[in-house]
Amino acid sequence: MGNKRVDHIAVAVADLEKALQFYTEQLGVELLEIETVEEQGVKVAKLNVGNTHIELLEPLSEDSPVGRFIAKKGEGLHHICLGVEDIESGIENLKGCGVRLIDETPKIGAGGAKIAFVHPKSTGGVLLELSQPSGDHH
Amino acid sequence: MGNKRVDHIAVAVADLEKALQFYTEQLGVELLEIETVEEQGVKVAKLNVGNTHIELLEPLSEDSPVGRFIAKKGEGLHHICLGVEDIESGIENLKGCGVRLIDETPKIGAGGAKIAFVHPKSTGGVLLELSQPSGDHH
Repeated sequence: MGNKRVDHIAVAVADLEKALQFYTEQLGVELLEIETVEEQGVKVAKLNVGNTHIELLEPLSEDSPVGRFIAKKGEGLHHICLGVEDIESGIENLKGCGVRLIDETPKIGAGGAKIAFVHPKSTGGVLLELSQPSGDHH
Repeated sequence: MGNKRVDHIAVAVADLEKALQFYTEQLGVELLEIETVEEQGVKVAKLNVGNTHIELLEPLSEDSPVGRFIAKKGEGLHHICLGVEDIESGIENLKGCGVRLIDETPKIGAGGAKIAFVHPKSTGGVLLELSQPSGDHH
C-alpha cells in the first residue's frame, strides 16, 4: 500500500473541554480545530504535535461507538490512523493474508479520504485505521 | 517544555513474533531493531512508520508492568511517548498546574534519554511518557 505515516492518534475522552485544558493549556500542544462529525457520533479536537496529530474524540451520545468504548473501557487511547498511498491494494493484500478487516471496502471519511479499519484481533489489539487522502498525491 | 513530537506509540503484545508478522510481513512496516530492556521487563521491537515509530512491547514476565497490563486489559495500545526539549521545566509546569505525575523527577531511559510518565488520570486516560533525548540538540 506504499509509504505509510501516522496520520493521527485518537483518544476517547468523556469531557472534551477538560481534556483540552490538559493538552493545550498544561501540556502546551496547539489546537488546530474542533469539528462535529455526526456520522461517527463524535466531536473531534485536532491537535498539532509536530510530526503528527492527536485527535480527542468526545462521543455525541452514549450509544455511539466511542460512547460504548468509554462505557466499557474508560477514557483512553482509541485507535491509530495510518496514512497510506493505495488503500485498495492494501486491503486486497491484507485480505489475501487472512487479516480480519472491519471494512472490506473503503468508506469515505472526513475530507473525502478513503478509510478502512483493521480489526484488533489481527493487529495485537490495536484498532487500526487506514486512510488514503483524497487526490492522487499527498 | 519546548517543541514536541510523537517519539513513539507503544503497543503491548502477548506474542511479539505473531505481532511482527502482521506489522512487517502483512502491513509492510519496516522493523528497525529488537531489544530486550530488562529494567522495564520488556522485549521491544521498534518499527519505522515514516514520521514516527511504533514500539511493540512483549513482557518478559507476567509480573512486569506490561505483563499486568495485558492480564488486566488485553493486548493493545499502551502509551504514547512525546519527545520534548526541556523535560525539567515541563515537569515543573505540569506539577504547578496540579497534573498528576507518575515520575516527579526524570528517570534515565533507553539511550540515556530523560523520561517521566504522566498519570492517565490527568490526560484523558492516556499513559503519557515525556522523553528528552540525551545531548542538548535533537
